[in-house]
Amino acid sequence: MDMQAIRDFFNSADAFAAHNGMTIVEVREGYARAEMELRPFHLNGARTVHGGALFTLADFAFAAASNSRGQLALSINSSISIFQGARAGKLIAEARELSHGPKLAGFAVEVRNEAGELLASFSGMVYRKSVALESLLPG
Amino acid sequence: MDMQAIRDFFNSADAFAAHNGMTIVEVREGYARAEMELRPFHLNGARTVHGGALFTLADFAFAAASNSRGQLALSINSSISIFQGARAGKLIAEARELSHGPKLAGFAVEVRNEAGELLASFSGMVYRKSVALESLLPG
Amino acid sequence: MDMQAIRDFFNSADAFAAHNGMTIVEVREGYARAEMELRPFHLNGARTVHGGALFTLADFAFAAASNSRGQLALSINSSISIFQGARAGKLIAEARELSHGPKLAGFAVEVRNEAGELLASFSGMVYRKSVALESLLPG
Amino acid sequence: MDMQAIRDFFNSADAFAAHNGMTIVEVREGYARAEMELRPFHLNGARTVHGGALFTLADFAFAAASNSRGQLALSINSSISIFQGARAGKLIAEARELSHGPKLAGFAVEVRNEAGELLASFSGMVYRKSVALESLLPG
Repeated sequence: MDMQAIRDFFNSADAFAAHNGMTIVEVREGYARAEMELRPFHLNGARTVHGGALFTLADFAFAAASNSRGQLALSINSSISIFQGARAGKLIAEARELSHGPKLAGFAVEVRNEAGELLASFSGMVYRKSVALESLLPG
Repeated sequence: MDMQAIRDFFNSADAFAAHNGMTIVEVREGYARAEMELRPFHLNGARTVHGGALFTLADFAFAAASNSRGQLALSINSSISIFQGARAGKLIAEARELSHGPKLAGFAVEVRNEAGELLASFSGMVYRKSVALESLLPG
Repeated sequence: MDMQAIRDFFNSADAFAAHNGMTIVEVREGYARAEMELRPFHLNGARTVHGGALFTLADFAFAAASNSRGQLALSINSSISIFQGARAGKLIAEARELSHGPKLAGFAVEVRNEAGELLASFSGMVYRKSVALESLLPG
Repeated sequence: MDMQAIRDFFNSADAFAAHNGMTIVEVREGYARAEMELRPFHLNGARTVHGGALFTLADFAFAAASNSRGQLALSINSSISIFQGARAGKLIAEARELSHGPKLAGFAVEVRNEAGELLASFSGMVYRKSVALESLLPG
């Protein structure tokens, strides 16, 4: 499948990621990288990046990576551990496939700041539907 | 502590929740309820509510509930299982304390639609800092 | 399906649970309760119940509950939060179904001591195979 | 601290791991490897390795790795995804530190068979007590 088409699909069709300033910058089979530039609306009441923003960035990379094999995959379970906060700068989430079967697949995602420090570690599992991702793509 | 003040603090100071249309509607000791009206920007590429939106709503209720005892509590770990999607209507997250110690506390959060159907189940743990929540509240 | 047959199946066929002194005491549709009497071999190096023993007891109740609908269900993902230790006495794990679909189902399990105190909270998800549980039961 | 002493401590003092045929074979700062030879008592009712056995092996490596810095560390939260079963042979769990702070630290553990196939992926977090591990070690 065309990795560029998958990247473009996620960047145009994922409204929640777009609303929160997140972009898929790379997709390969079983891998994706998402980025966001921290802005004031990403913070929580303690003035550090919101757990929901870290989770969403990781989840977005996870979605692109898990759909990179061309079959519609939906997240069923995920967990996140948060090690460190951030207030500014670019955050990068990299998702890597750990295991893939016909129906289920597991991924690990790391969220880092520009200095390469690990802010959060995410694990997720998807269920693959019997639907080709292409059927969701335009044209 | 004044539960109304905690509710107001989260609704005014949590920028990410506000940016995503989420509101704390009730806080009691060890409990909080958050709500959001689904809008198009909450959806993902498969046209159902984004996992990051479900997580953030649950995490927001979790934050209010875990700070309800008056000591600053930060999320360190959480997991979410997603059972069902949604495209419209109001979603409600209720967070309940399972256990609380001086440093650590555990919570369970359920996210439901207006019909009461369970969309997602969330578990989270916080670490309590030696900082009074009041020190973050406005004068 | 016959709940007594499911209970007997788990108590006779689950070798790891038996080796670790665990018993299913009740199964209903979407529910199961497992128990173990703490013995010295359940402890870790800090002389409190091992996280693996708490997990296994919870997982055993989860397995019985998730197979109670008569279709073979295998655990794909689970998480556990541990709140309190124990050195002696009986521990009880109760598993309850949160959601069930044709392929996936979610469960919550609580592990308590005899005084009813919550020691650990467990969440798990199963994948249902197209195999009747009865095909595994003896004659 | 003496890595050999930590290894010996876990192999002699962790009663639950010993009861289930598990051994720590290597400890370094922030790392540990545990092994077990699958035996009939490790299996579940579906005749594959029990989720509790996979979890306990991962948790044992996690405990040794998280205590390798010389301060008593207790597991507070962990999650496991299971990708593949096994009926015989040796299983190997490797735990690696992702992040370490004064009070909290995060680890990832992979459980593989002898062919190097990933059976399960585990994430865990510990809370460090103000107790030196040495105080638990014999004379």
